Amino acid sequence: MTPFPAEPVAPEPLRPSADDAGSGVSRRRLLGVSGTAAVAGVVAGATSAYAVTRADDASAAGAPTPAAAPALALDAAIPFRGEHQAGIVTPAQDRLHFVALDVVTKDPAQLRELLKAWTRAAERMSLGAEAAPGGLVGGGPNRAPEDTGEAYGLPASGLTVTIGFGPSLFDDRFGLADRKPAALEELPTFGGDQLDPKRSGGDLCIQACANDPQVAVHAVRNLVRMGFGVVAVRWSQLGFGRTSSTSTAQATPRNMFGFKDGTNNVKAEEPEGLAQHVWVAPEDEQGAGAWMAGGSYLVARRIRMHIEVWDRTPLQEQEDIIGRDKKEGAPLGQAAEFDPLDFGKKGPDGQPAIPVHAHVKLAHESQLGGVRILRRGYNFTDGSDGVGHLDAGLFFIAYMRNPGRQFVPMQRALASKDVLNEYIEHNGSAVFACPPGVKDGEYWGQALFA
Amino acid sequence: MTPFPAEPVAPEPLRPSADDAGSGVSRRRLLGVSGTAAVAGVVAGATSAYAVTRADDASAAGAPTPAAAPALALDAAIPFRGEHQAGIVTPAQDRLHFVALDVVTKDPAQLRELLKAWTRAAERMSLGAEAAPGGLVGGGPNRAPEDTGEAYGLPASGLTVTIGFGPSLFDDRFGLADRKPAALEELPTFGGDQLDPKRSGGDLCIQACANDPQVAVHAVRNLVRMGFGVVAVRWSQLGFGRTSSTSTAQATPRNMFGFKDGTNNVKAEEPEGLAQHVWVAPEDEQGAGAWMAGGSYLVARRIRMHIEVWDRTPLQEQEDIIGRDKKEGAPLGQAAEFDPLDFGKKGPDGQPAIPVHAHVKLAHESQLGGVRILRRGYNFTDGSDGVGHLDAGLFFIAYMRNPGRQFVPMQRALASKDVLNEYIEHNGSAVFACPPGVKDGEYWGQALFA
Repeated sequence: MTPFPAEPVAPEPLRPSADDAGSGVSRRRLLGVSGTAAVAGVVAGATSAYAVTRADDASAAGAPTPAAAPALALDAAIPFRGEHQAGIVTPAQDRLHFVALDVVTKDPAQLRELLKAWTRAAERMSLGAEAAPGGLVGGGPNRAPEDTGEAYGLPASGLTVTIGFGPSLFDDRFGLADRKPAALEELPTFGGDQLDPKRSGGDLCIQACANDPQVAVHAVRNLVRMGFGVVAVRWSQLGFGRTSSTSTAQATPRNMFGFKDGTNNVKAEEPEGLAQHVWVAPEDEQGAGAWMAGGSYLVARRIRMHIEVWDRTPLQEQEDIIGRDKKEGAPLGQAAEFDPLDFGKKGPDGQPAIPVHAHVKLAHESQLGGVRILRRGYNFTDGSDGVGHLDAGLFFIAYMRNPGRQFVPMQRALASKDVLNEYIEHNGSAVFACPPGVKDGEYWGQALFA
Repeated sequence: MTPFPAEPVAPEPLRPSADDAGSGVSRRRLLGVSGTAAVAGVVAGATSAYAVTRADDASAAGAPTPAAAPALALDAAIPFRGEHQAGIVTPAQDRLHFVALDVVTKDPAQLRELLKAWTRAAERMSLGAEAAPGGLVGGGPNRAPEDTGEAYGLPASGLTVTIGFGPSLFDDRFGLADRKPAALEELPTFGGDQLDPKRSGGDLCIQACANDPQVAVHAVRNLVRMGFGVVAVRWSQLGFGRTSSTSTAQATPRNMFGFKDGTNNVKAEEPEGLAQHVWVAPEDEQGAGAWMAGGSYLVARRIRMHIEVWDRTPLQEQEDIIGRDKKEGAPLGQAAEFDPLDFGKKGPDGQPAIPVHAHVKLAHESQLGGVRILRRGYNFTDGSDGVGHLDAGLFFIAYMRNPGRQFVPMQRALASKDVLNEYIEHNGSAVFACPPGVKDGEYWGQALFA
């Protein structure tokens, strides 16, 4: 196979040229570094975040290079290449645009070429550059621009773009049936599921996370544009606020029930936890799915919350249902958020401080044979439902080593016992195999086609 | 009439108490000032923005008070009270949650009480506080919390909450028929309109703008919650990126066509332009609509953009349709964004540099008898349309002194001649009368009920 990419990926458009002088507008507060220096840092394999401005922002070219950028700087660029895909253990960015796509071509070669083109574009956009060299105007007046332009002048904004392959991709269309990982099975139906086929499934998914929603939307829109004739959007979901921390450096955010969520998440700083619960190990998939080593499985669930009903529920009842206090996020019976969950502790009434069917108990590893997952979900509000209510909730995303052994038993337990079910409705569902990270010279999912 | 409010509005919950010590989490980079100091500044009538943390963020209590906060600090609090409502000439925040509501009660007194309660809550939330004193837990374990909690720990984030009254509010339900302003008429049908009744109209509207979408969503959600039984959501719209500058201090953003938009907007720094084009003057409405003096009319249009078609349109054609170059946003035939539009200038081919039907020409005051409006729109992406495309576009919001004399002739000209119509579809529409600012002791729209 030809080494990929044949052409250099990013550096030249990130060098401000005379033509570009003075053209850059950077909307955000920014730690200015020259694009060239930032690229050099990324190419040299630095794993810390670098602040770069988009494309040809010449205004920053002469600025001094800081010795070290803050790890969570909202404008920073996140390295695209590595052992694992970015956007999984990357400290969860604030905003999401997630899209599921169906492949509409019958030609496997077109799909492979698209994955190569997507790799180039995603890497460029992750650095804060436009989707293709030349950007807005490079193709000349008689061609459609190579980039749609709405993120021009915005910084990289922590963009990560993560790809996944759905079970349906491994049917008989593309000769991939004998490459389907054993762990990539459609999810079973759970009690209470009210799934909408228009919000479920997909041959492919793209998860774009960024600290500026315009940057996330721009990334998805440009990849979709490049895929015209090869893929079509099946469904998509915007998320406006992260509901999980994936790093101990992040404060735990709140979900649309107003509670801190995901306090006990698997985090980036737990290499053993990640190895045990998140990354596919070489021994997991031998034969058909061997290409998944270093990858992870993504489960997405669109969980509508009946927030109007919840908002009329007394505080004590809310806290009993969740198993934490609302203000601090402390486990009931404890004082602080990160105090341990003590399921044996009794309250003043002699009953367990954490009720037996509380959400935190049912979802806790101690009740699930040690199973954990890495949650990376987002709050959403998608307008209203036509009968006076906001269509709001949680777009649940979780990464794991094996959905059948992790998400499925967890969701079975929740579906059968969780009192929270009165207040929620799962109306979208999908599972994807996210391949390992893209190494130098590789394209997204290359091992799948090898 | 009883002076409003009877109880003090904001100060006490913003003073960190011993009970609250250590409970604050502020997710954003923050210019820390004590809540008390910030409130004092607002109460003293300061018009510059102050950075405050939400509610009882004790972590900032001991921090030094900066002499002056940057005017556009993303975390700042915007004063709620003043001569005009906040959220009109306020430098446009990055994110929007807009909701149109119908009044479902038949009792005018309930509506008036809700407006009082909304005023208290909106002022508190604008300061970064919870919707009601006591916030998440103040009502005790046996009552539903007074605040839904998802913005707890977030800064004020520049939140503004702006209210408007639709023409339908002035029917025979609430005894307001003889208070209807002459200028508040339903918009006429324009050529090409494809309006969806489920995205149009409404008795009331609330525009919440903030630099953190979670803060904007929280504000709308809590006001809707408080209105249970009195109002119901008719439709709502999230916007993820502003498409207009309303201050010369802001860079011009880009819309989903990738072009800079609203360069020639009426801006906060133009008092004469605002008086002429935005604020209702006392002489405009005498009799029925006299209460609107100092207010403004809001026109909202949901404009779906066929971005997939646009993205395949050659650069030159895109630029000819808009009348500006894509990269700089300069008028065609000129070099820089703020160069004047010169409709007499010829290109090398002897034709006008700005084509006669270019969008910027049709919408320009010189073609409309001097009419201008204050644009305050947002980019949106609402998932996909079920046939492979993103449902994306512009949620157009504009403020003006008289829709019939400003928006209507402008839109008539655009609807009949604008080449852009091939790429867009107006599918939602509404008009609202936004009352003047809330002065000390007043509630939202008090003059309407006086």
